[in-house]
Amino acid sequence: MEQTERAGALRPMEIERRSFEIIDAELKKMGREIPAELRPVLYRVIHTTADFEYADTLYVSEGAIRQALDALRPGALIVTDTNMALSGLHKSAVRKLGMECICFMADPGVAEEAKRRGCTRALVSMERAAAEQRQVILAVGNAPTALLRITELSREGFRPALVVGVPVGFVNVVQSKEALIATGLPCIVNRGRKGGSNVAAAIVNALMYMKDETRGEG
Amino acid sequence: MEQTERAGALRPMEIERRSFEIIDAELKKMGREIPAELRPVLYRVIHTTADFEYADTLYVSEGAIRQALDALRPGALIVTDTNMALSGLHKSAVRKLGMECICFMADPGVAEEAKRRGCTRALVSMERAAAEQRQVILAVGNAPTALLRITELSREGFRPALVVGVPVGFVNVVQSKEALIATGLPCIVNRGRKGGSNVAAAIVNALMYMKDETRGEG
Repeated sequence: MEQTERAGALRPMEIERRSFEIIDAELKKMGREIPAELRPVLYRVIHTTADFEYADTLYVSEGAIRQALDALRPGALIVTDTNMALSGLHKSAVRKLGMECICFMADPGVAEEAKRRGCTRALVSMERAAAEQRQVILAVGNAPTALLRITELSREGFRPALVVGVPVGFVNVVQSKEALIATGLPCIVNRGRKGGSNVAAAIVNALMYMKDETRGEG
Repeated sequence: MEQTERAGALRPMEIERRSFEIIDAELKKMGREIPAELRPVLYRVIHTTADFEYADTLYVSEGAIRQALDALRPGALIVTDTNMALSGLHKSAVRKLGMECICFMADPGVAEEAKRRGCTRALVSMERAAAEQRQVILAVGNAPTALLRITELSREGFRPALVVGVPVGFVNVVQSKEALIATGLPCIVNRGRKGGSNVAAAIVNALMYMKDETRGEG
């Protein structure tokens, strides 16, 4: 009963602040010194997963944070590879920055085309993203085929402002992430098997909050 | 290029099957013998997170799997504490079992009541769930306050068919899970800090697939 009241009395932003303090303290105790620029992203990923292993595996290409913050501006589009990642994006932050976010996975046209071509919907979704005539931030939390298609499209000239490449799993996942890194595209990747739609959303949210330091509650 | 084609040629269900084989082999290599009844749930959680630590921390109350499978029937309602968990539920499996799923978090009435009472929306959401006149399965992947409120409501006679209690985080999370376990309600809980909306959805999906072994693709 007391616990409920204490928990109920803590506002979400206060819980978040305390959580980040705990994460910071534990990383220091582990002897990990995280560069200031990377902290907001890494800490939010650890906040989302309670998994400190990300401190060892999260890869950020040189300049990617700065490029991402520059790209998060009115007119830009965030494309996710799952509805779950889309649902994890902080919508009022997206709106406040004058951006839009979308996931093509549920688009009947995408499903139909994937079926006809015998490929995944995620792959077709990335082609839709590449066809957009605006700044695009890609957030891939599930499908290695999405990352591999981005890798190919980059050879044909596709230049997303940022690729968040954090699919999770056991088949083709590690390879797809390394292939993305090898393209030289601005990217944030979690090397190895771990990741997920929640992680993809957390990374994009962290960047949006960095861009808009004045974020209010809710 | 070859990788894409190989990845593209693997159908999602085949990738899933191979992933489960890898998970099974690695658990065996770790010397872990998982009871057959728990495998579908644990393996799907590991599949969703690529995190084998869940083999040590996932707690299933006695008889909970059987009770859950019994509860997943026409007319039952799955209530999640986040839209992200709701979005992760396999909707066609929900429909096929004649059930419904809902998240009250975006309900303007819930937000208003939470503001007025100075508590979290998740807490109010669980009260809405408790007021339902039907079999209820609760899936909590985010809010410890939701678990703590369920714990209180259980003392007042609330008997959900199953509580999936897997909030993630650093503040009040561990305590809320232990409080839930102490109620004796049928529950699946990940002890410790780890969990998440993706894990909550994965557990409910695993139970639905166990119930409906004939699941097709998509």
